[in-house]
Amino acid sequence: MEIPVVRNVLEANDRIALNLKETFAKHNILVLNLISSPGSGKTSLLEKTLRDLKNEFCMAVIEGDLQTDNDARRVAATGAQAVQINTDGGCHLDANMVQKALKSFNLEEIDILFVENVGNLVCPVEFDCGEDAKIALLSAAEGDDKPEKYPRLFQLAQVMIVNKIDLLDYVDFSVENAKKHAKALNNDLQVFELSCRTEAGLEPWYAWLRSELGKKRV
Amino acid sequence: MEIPVVRNVLEANDRIALNLKETFAKHNILVLNLISSPGSGKTSLLEKTLRDLKNEFCMAVIEGDLQTDNDARRVAATGAQAVQINTDGGCHLDANMVQKALKSFNLEEIDILFVENVGNLVCPVEFDCGEDAKIALLSAAEGDDKPEKYPRLFQLAQVMIVNKIDLLDYVDFSVENAKKHAKALNNDLQVFELSCRTEAGLEPWYAWLRSELGKKRV
Repeated sequence: MEIPVVRNVLEANDRIALNLKETFAKHNILVLNLISSPGSGKTSLLEKTLRDLKNEFCMAVIEGDLQTDNDARRVAATGAQAVQINTDGGCHLDANMVQKALKSFNLEEIDILFVENVGNLVCPVEFDCGEDAKIALLSAAEGDDKPEKYPRLFQLAQVMIVNKIDLLDYVDFSVENAKKHAKALNNDLQVFELSCRTEAGLEPWYAWLRSELGKKRV
Repeated sequence: MEIPVVRNVLEANDRIALNLKETFAKHNILVLNLISSPGSGKTSLLEKTLRDLKNEFCMAVIEGDLQTDNDARRVAATGAQAVQINTDGGCHLDANMVQKALKSFNLEEIDILFVENVGNLVCPVEFDCGEDAKIALLSAAEGDDKPEKYPRLFQLAQVMIVNKIDLLDYVDFSVENAKKHAKALNNDLQVFELSCRTEAGLEPWYAWLRSELGKKRV
């Protein structure tokens, strides 16, 4: 009895996501859906990216959280436009929430829209928010077995970011193992290893953003 | 339309959970439901606990994961009885899954049953698995804002364990902030700070287990 309900919800979501994709295509906006466990560093990555690329691109952020507007305030402090969605206990963002949040932006201006999903490695994965790509984040403090244990995200994502590589000396985490497990699920996965804290490894991620935006504009 | 469906699911779950509570009470089993983000160290805490207390108590574990039996194998290596539940994409354990898993155990023998939930700070919280207490784990690498951002678990838990305190020198995490936010939600919350890696701080957790089991047997 439960499965048909879930299917209906996903079908309804996909219809709205399709509308969103058309809207984003019309305005040449690159849309990226950031998904990870709580505390992997999605907001920290956005803070760095928004600050370092603000003279190149106009960027906006939709922040998804159960409660608080902490994250929207953090990213707005970089000068980027930010909207906070509070899901009030809901475990993921969906296309309908994103569509409503879009009303706060002038889409004519935006080059890149980041959707920072609720911290959850499971539920956000199936809900298309109209994005061009899902970005999976993994912290080096979380254990290198996460792609194997939570495979669906890594199957569907275009990028895996291994964050907090400054902690590698202090934790039992093999970047090679994490990559091996993730690539076994999705051989096309692009992997970036970086530390938002030390700023190591950010440049290849920025180069990828430039390249993806370039493709979008062709 | 969605809310009544969720309510029905929760009501059905609560009925089974009530049966489970009666079963556990009949056998004087202390049941603890471990809930955290992926990679906070639930399995590591169980490995240490099962090894260190195996001469005192008979302990069993129900492991919940989307995929793999990695965790059941890890805890079984300590000599404890372990059953793996694969949710096949499902984001939490429920009372029905726990009831089925119980068939693998001889309940007459067991003193403490640990239920290691799917790594997810949101969805497992509302699904009572018949436990005496929910144990919330938080890794020091996850950020001290998690109780504030994911309040429901910390409202309902009896214990918050701050794990990976060996990383405190390398991350921006204030144990005081985490405690302050968590206690604001739930003033009765018992907090343990420990490191499964260095084994610092395990003894107060073990003392709590002894005391809770003692209460159960009165």
